[in-house]
Amino acid sequence: VSNHGSEQVVARVNARLASFLAHKRAQADLLSPRAAELVDAITALTMRGGKRLRAVAIYAGFRAVTDASASAAMSGVPEGVLQLAAAIELLQSYFLIQDDWMDDDEERRGGPSVHAALAQRHGQAKLGASLAILAADLAVGFAFELLQSTEFPGQRAIQARLTFSEMHFEVVCGQQLDLLGHPDVTLTHHLKTGSYSVRGPLQLGALLGDASAEQLHALERFGRPVGLAFQLRDDLLGTFGDSRATGKPAGHDLREGKNTALVAEAREMLTEASRARLLRVLGQRDASDADIAALTADMERSGVRARVEARLNAHIEEAERALDQSPLSTSGVALLRELLGRIVVRDH
Amino acid sequence: VSNHGSEQVVARVNARLASFLAHKRAQADLLSPRAAELVDAITALTMRGGKRLRAVAIYAGFRAVTDASASAAMSGVPEGVLQLAAAIELLQSYFLIQDDWMDDDEERRGGPSVHAALAQRHGQAKLGASLAILAADLAVGFAFELLQSTEFPGQRAIQARLTFSEMHFEVVCGQQLDLLGHPDVTLTHHLKTGSYSVRGPLQLGALLGDASAEQLHALERFGRPVGLAFQLRDDLLGTFGDSRATGKPAGHDLREGKNTALVAEAREMLTEASRARLLRVLGQRDASDADIAALTADMERSGVRARVEARLNAHIEEAERALDQSPLSTSGVALLRELLGRIVVRDH
Repeated sequence: VSNHGSEQVVARVNARLASFLAHKRAQADLLSPRAAELVDAITALTMRGGKRLRAVAIYAGFRAVTDASASAAMSGVPEGVLQLAAAIELLQSYFLIQDDWMDDDEERRGGPSVHAALAQRHGQAKLGASLAILAADLAVGFAFELLQSTEFPGQRAIQARLTFSEMHFEVVCGQQLDLLGHPDVTLTHHLKTGSYSVRGPLQLGALLGDASAEQLHALERFGRPVGLAFQLRDDLLGTFGDSRATGKPAGHDLREGKNTALVAEAREMLTEASRARLLRVLGQRDASDADIAALTADMERSGVRARVEARLNAHIEEAERALDQSPLSTSGVALLRELLGRIVVRDH
Repeated sequence: VSNHGSEQVVARVNARLASFLAHKRAQADLLSPRAAELVDAITALTMRGGKRLRAVAIYAGFRAVTDASASAAMSGVPEGVLQLAAAIELLQSYFLIQDDWMDDDEERRGGPSVHAALAQRHGQAKLGASLAILAADLAVGFAFELLQSTEFPGQRAIQARLTFSEMHFEVVCGQQLDLLGHPDVTLTHHLKTGSYSVRGPLQLGALLGDASAEQLHALERFGRPVGLAFQLRDDLLGTFGDSRATGKPAGHDLREGKNTALVAEAREMLTEASRARLLRVLGQRDASDADIAALTADMERSGVRARVEARLNAHIEEAERALDQSPLSTSGVALLRELLGRIVVRDH
């Protein structure tokens, strides 16, 4: 058990997700027994893993703006935190289902992606894709339903709903820029991941805790670099990560042709011969393991990996500075530091 | 101009949709000029047509539970009606974008469907499909945002948001059953179309007007048969409709292999030779015009069309009976009758 209660949050959020999805399955079953299939698909993906970093971020945002003694007096995790955390995890499932289909990814969290599982079951790729999109539709509907039924203090509900809508808007635009291979990888990351992985959840938790404008601002200053660090860590894992931990094959992002921060740096930094290899291998689904290994070795040798790790560390330092002398509670700051550690030290 | 103000509602809703989407386009443009492309795709589809029947249904539900003199005293269409009507029209755009991709429909409202337009522009079918799904994502996000910012009297917001979520849930499940060719066509119709075309909008408008339980119940009794009539009219238009009015080629539903009420009746009622033709032609995209013409003639001759029209008329009569001696306002009942006429007499 962690010092700051985040393990307890994860366990409670998992329980809430399981009970919410069981309730929705029963509702679908009443409409038609076949309708439960889509809820089952969401449940399989949502409950099979996931680090629940966004759920912890909501809790951290809440704690950071709530008086420590008041937090201590509360028994456990507030209801609103559980609701919002379940909402953001289902928003995440919705994005993952769509992303995996868009990227033709067959695996996710150590099992088949939703469109792959449904295509397999029904024996048709297009039908599997269509049903996966419908499963994603249900998941985003559930996320909005949970958001709408969360009780916020005073007039904070309006701000929270706007934050949620903005977050949704930014992620979708970020995904669009990603699909179109937009050259500004930092902008794409800021929109696609930063928004709903860190900044958004922190703001939502803080609004639930009736944060002051100064507190919201401090969390924004912290959240922005953490979001960028989060994505750089993802990029490093997608290329150099251990497939047993990430649940995806090694070199996955290279075979996918993803325009990661590593690829952007590699285009600048590699020698001519290595760059030729990059251009030949990038986006080739059937690239050999030897080619992938040679390319990642090139990226190590030429300093691409070190450069991206240095940028990641600069973001971490910026985030840590934002916590110094901030208007946030001591226990909240401890939790935010723990969150930062989980995000940047993770192996999947 | 209609007697009951529905033309005015349509004009006002169109203006609201246009200004809302222009605002969203500006927001997207601030994130990145390329991001505006998705908003443009939604705008093109949403503003190119659409009968706004759901918008009129919201207004009718509102008027039906609002005192006539109070309605008359109000200058024009209430703000909440415009917000909800824009929300439901964007929900409709979201469903249409997804449906057209799932059904491989290249045309909608007399122009290219969203996935077809985007595939054409980017020169890749899968990229066009992915971008279309993202456009649908934005549209559903906009719909929830508009719903969330609508002010309801007293505690009615909670009920309204639940109604909206239920409606979304039912349509998605209905679409799933449709894709899987569920044998119970009436259930599929009830879920897929009835919910968000008629019942849901009437309830939302009524909640905005602070309806009594009796009034909500009366609108439910009216809305259920109207929803079923709506779908039967759609089925009749999809097979016997004039392509210049419907914006889709004649015999469209037969070539698509849709499991319509007509096809369900035809399976029972056609002669053996005609049934053989049905099984041969149904779902054949490249079926000849001669085959389609012969099949629709079979369906006329054997009484399939007449049977479905009789069922449609029975639903209309049930809906009219629900309005007799109802606890609804006189002006509201007039508007509901007008809505019923628009739904069942339409040619597209």
